[in-house]
This record gives sequence, structure tokens and C-alpha cells, in this order.
Amino acid sequence: MDLDELAADIDWPDREAARAAQQRWNALTKPAGSLGRLEELGTWWCSVRGACPAPPPADPVLLLVAGDHGVAREAGTSAYPPEVTAQMVRAFLRGEAAANALARSASARVRVVDAGVDADPDYAADLAPGVADRRIRRGSGSIDREDAMTLAEAERAVALGVALVDDEVDAGADLLLLGDMGIGNTTVSAVIISLLAPGDVVSLVGRGTGIDDATWMRKCAAARDAVRRGRPDKGAPLELLASVGSPDLAVMVGALLRAAGRRTPVILDGPLTSAAALIAHRIAYKSRDWWQASHLSVEPAHAAAFARLDLAPLLDLKMRLGEGTGALLALPLLRAAAATLQEMRTFEELGVTQVERPPTRPRP
Amino acid sequence: MDLDELAADIDWPDREAARAAQQRWNALTKPAGSLGRLEELGTWWCSVRGACPAPPPADPVLLLVAGDHGVAREAGTSAYPPEVTAQMVRAFLRGEAAANALARSASARVRVVDAGVDADPDYAADLAPGVADRRIRRGSGSIDREDAMTLAEAERAVALGVALVDDEVDAGADLLLLGDMGIGNTTVSAVIISLLAPGDVVSLVGRGTGIDDATWMRKCAAARDAVRRGRPDKGAPLELLASVGSPDLAVMVGALLRAAGRRTPVILDGPLTSAAALIAHRIAYKSRDWWQASHLSVEPAHAAAFARLDLAPLLDLKMRLGEGTGALLALPLLRAAAATLQEMRTFEELGVTQVERPPTRPRP
Repeated sequence: MDLDELAADIDWPDREAARAAQQRWNALTKPAGSLGRLEELGTWWCSVRGACPAPPPADPVLLLVAGDHGVAREAGTSAYPPEVTAQMVRAFLRGEAAANALARSASARVRVVDAGVDADPDYAADLAPGVADRRIRRGSGSIDREDAMTLAEAERAVALGVALVDDEVDAGADLLLLGDMGIGNTTVSAVIISLLAPGDVVSLVGRGTGIDDATWMRKCAAARDAVRRGRPDKGAPLELLASVGSPDLAVMVGALLRAAGRRTPVILDGPLTSAAALIAHRIAYKSRDWWQASHLSVEPAHAAAFARLDLAPLLDLKMRLGEGTGALLALPLLRAAAATLQEMRTFEELGVTQVERPPTRPRP
Repeated sequence: MDLDELAADIDWPDREAARAAQQRWNALTKPAGSLGRLEELGTWWCSVRGACPAPPPADPVLLLVAGDHGVAREAGTSAYPPEVTAQMVRAFLRGEAAANALARSASARVRVVDAGVDADPDYAADLAPGVADRRIRRGSGSIDREDAMTLAEAERAVALGVALVDDEVDAGADLLLLGDMGIGNTTVSAVIISLLAPGDVVSLVGRGTGIDDATWMRKCAAARDAVRRGRPDKGAPLELLASVGSPDLAVMVGALLRAAGRRTPVILDGPLTSAAALIAHRIAYKSRDWWQASHLSVEPAHAAAFARLDLAPLLDLKMRLGEGTGALLALPLLRAAAATLQEMRTFEELGVTQVERPPTRPRP
């Protein structure tokens, strides 16, 4: 299935349900607009569920996509060695990482996906046999001087994202969360976001896992070289993914497009998920309305991507971990918004005195 | 029990537990500091629970304190008539307001307190016999030209706050949330906050429930008159509460002081709760460390109070409803922080490669 076919399946969320939600918010026993962004969130939920009110998510699933990035090993852009990616996948499978604790706290399932971890295929066989079976390749090329992968690999990665979404939606998932794990992936994020959103790449390169000045300078140089390599492919998503992307990023692009095509909402997380969103949005401009930005991380590229997508993150907790942690923290807000819209009563239903004059615009 | 006795019971939260929490965050399988404010929140929770790790709150209780304010009726400072306060108390007791939906979503109990509603004592007898039994008085004086209540009433209101906290903590509450309901209470908030935090009162008067320009001008004039009336009592908390406060505000002051004295943490909500916090902080400077700011509302006085208290709200969702809705939305973040600190494993426990050099300071 090629990208144009994926795009052709994508329509807007339900505008009728959104209108009904807005009307219901205004009729509830509270001053109009007084729940601020919670109202917007509840309205979005109704639009993507196609109903008003719509019950809170019943089966949210975090797609936690892991992959290694050659640029981390070759150009030394991370504070951690690449082995950590595989070790963290093992931690996810054992349920002992931040994502697992937050998923339990928010009642979400976690699906771990090895898209391109640089480890022996049996590195986690004791915990989850076959976790590496669908892997696109072992690690990616160092994007500052070689392609991340071949075009055929990029195609397979997109198809893997599509298949994962089909799996989960067929199994009943009514909300997807996207999370990343991979040493070096903030370099890839900065490169992609610099190519698709305004901003010189050096202004978008952050401290990632917490790198020192020397590593940051190496990271900037590698990112700048990669941007130069990737520029000719700016307009061609699959070529861009192959030249300066990565298998995990391509899986996310496939997942975002398929989710929108299957009318399934997605909560975005950190910079890599927003880089995937930028690419998917280029392919299918209606896809964006199916997504919710969860949090603003301290990585500068993140804000640039959201500005380009015109998405406003719900939380600003100065986080920079990834793994879907921001998306998982936003999930209770979404549940709360949906429950409030569903369970509150209107002034009329309660016999409460209504305001005589229409409320004025609140002060900025 | 007078205010000085309440203050004498208050000590700092457990610094040893906070230190242990900070060390544990740094040892967990993630880059140091990468969970940002979630780490601060988890550390605070350990300090107020006196243990590391400390299990998430098991029995959080929202104290939802209602009262009417003469200034709304006399000076016309609200978009809603005072009858709405009693009607909303009935909605709370029926479980049909925003606070109820959010409390269910966050698994918190709601305790409705009528501190000074301006309605017949039997207005909710069919729903909760005795809800008005402990009421301090029926509505408050119009603070722009008369006292809100007598000194004896202010004392009784503080004592009611103390008794409520004793009730709940004795019944097992391990976390309190503070919420307000009362037409006119943003006028009182602006007056108190203007007296105790820097800022001319007119710059602190907001649109409340959504008032028009003419009402806003009346509200400003009333607030300015009240500030003039209250200035001589700035340094005397009980006198201040009596002259330009209100029974519900005084209940909150008593509750905040008693909670700190009983080593029980509190999540603050909107402007009235932060006005109560300013007063309680003047009485006992150690009390502040027992509190967490949940959200920043669009009322300008709110930010001024938090700046003075040096508390940083977790959420900024442009809300202005009150009822404890912001505190209830912050509760899942607190649960998540506590669960993460408790359930994650350390690098050592998992055998994950540790970073070779200490992480550098993230870029601002």
C-alpha cells in the first residue's frame, strides 16, 4: 500500500459531533467557556469519536516504537551508548520503565515495537519471543554521510506502522498513543523538523538525554550535514525517510496515516513523534485533526514542529524522556474532559438560574 | 483554638524523604532530570508523606466550600444572581456538577461545606439534611462598605475549617483538595490578594464568571473601596477576614493551617484558595511547603498570589470555574509521579549501561 492510497482514505473528523459538543459545553451548569482548554479537548474527542457526548477512551494503547540511529554511534551525538536502546526495550517488556508505570497509572496498554534496534535478534527472546521479528533493519545508517535505509526498507517500515494500527484497532483500541525509544533519535528529529518547519537546524538541536557542550557541537555538525544531505528529498516523503529518517520514524508515519484513515485518534508525544506528524501531514493534510499534542518537551525542535502543525500541547512539564510519557500524562485529562461533557447536567435540566446577558469575552 | 496555636503545630515537611526521593529519581533508568516537573512533584509528595517512595494518594478528599458574598448582590459584581450559589450546592449534592464528574474521573471524594450560603437553611434538606447546620452566617456583608462578618464569626469560621480537616484526616484522608463555590468570590479574592501580594487591585480584577464591561467597572470600584477599607487590617489575619474576607475564605484558612499542622498535603485550586493560602502563609510561614498549586486560571489575581507564594502551578488550561476543578485535574499527575517513583527500577537493578559523564545542564 503506497502513501497516496493511505492518504486517500483520510477524511476530516466529524464536524457535526464537534458542533454538538460545543453547544453542550455552553448549556452545562457553568459559565460558558469556563473550563477553557478542557472544553476544546472534549470537543475534539467528540469529533474524532463521531458522537456527542462520547464515552471516555476504553482501550487506549501506547505504540512504543524503538530503533537505533547510526548517527549516535558514528558521530557520537548522545550521552548514552547505543546498547541502552536494547536494554530499555527489555525494561519495557519487563514493565519496569517510566512508560510502564505511567501506563499502569493511566490504565493504558503498552505495545513494544522493535523497528530497528541495533542488537542481536534474540536480545529479548526470554521476555517476548519474536519482538525483533518484524524489525526493518539492525540500526540505521549514519545520516550525516549515508542513507538511513533503502527506499524498500522505508516502504516496509511504513507498512509495519499500518499493520500495527490495523492489529490494534481490530482488537478494539479506540485511542492510540505514540512513543519513541532510541539513542540518537533527537538528532533525527531536529533534522526532519528543520527541513519541514521553519528554523535553522542548530537552533533546533537540544541536549537530548543531557549531553555536554562537546557532544552538542558534534550533534550540531552531524545534524547540519544531514540537513544538507536531506534537502533534495524535502518534498518526497519516502525518499526523505530513507535518506535522513529512520525505520522507527517511518513506522510512526505509517501508523499516523493509517490511524487517521481508520478514524482513530492519536496522542502525540515527543520530538520524534512530532517529526513523524510533520511528514504525515505533508502527505495528507486532513490527518492533523485526528491528533492531539500532549506535552511540550524542552527539546527546541518540539515547539517548532507544533507551531508548524498548529497544535497546542496540553502540558508543559519540562520533560525530555520520550517513551510516550507525555502522552500518558495527558490521557487522564482527556478522560476527564470526556467524562465531564458526558456526566454534567445542563442549566435547564437542573433548573438553575441562567445568566441574563451573554457572557463577554474573557480578558486575555 | 486561636491562630497562634494553629501555627505552633506546623513544621516543615520531611527533608530527609525529599533528599531520598531526589536521589532515587537520579538512579532510575532515565537520564537525570528528564521527567522535569514530574520529578519535583514526586519529590514533594515524598516530603509531605515522610517516606520514599511513598504510595500514591489512597483517599483524596475535595473540601468544596460554598458561600455567598454581599458585594455581589449589593454592588452587582457578577454575571449571575446570588441564587446560583445555592443551586450549585444542590448540584454538587446530586453529583451533577463539573466537580463531581472530575472527582469521579480522578477517584476523589467530595465533601460539600456550606460556610455562608445566602439561602433558607433547608434549601438542600432533601439532598443532605444538615448541610447548612454549621453555616457561619447567611451571606456576608458587602465588603465595599461594611464588614464581611464579625470577629467572632471569623473565629468560628476558622474553627470550622479546623474541624473539617480533623474529621477527614481522622477518617483516613491522605490528601486534601480545596475548592470554592460562591457568586462574587473573585471580588473577595482580588481584594485579599491585592492587599497581601504586590499589584494594584484594578490590575487583579478579572472577568469572573464572564462579566461585561459595565459590570467589570462596578466590580473594580467595589474592589477598590474594599481594599481601602481592609488596608488597616492587613497585618491582622482575623481582622482582615472579618472586614474584607468571607466565611468561606476563613474556613479555608483554618483548613490550610490545620492540614499543615496535621502533616497533610493540600492541592490548591482557584483564586479564593490562593487568597486563603496567602493569609495562612502570613500566619505560619512553614505551611506553604505542604501545598501544591494545581493550575493557573485566567483570573489575573491568581498569578499574583502564586508569585508571592513562590508556587508554580502544574497546569495552564485557561480555566475559570473554581469548584476544585483545577485541583482535581492535577490529581492524576500526582498519582503518576508517585507511581513512577515507586515502580521504576534503577539502572543498577536493571543492569542498564550507565552514562559515563554526568549529564550537563539542559538548555533553557
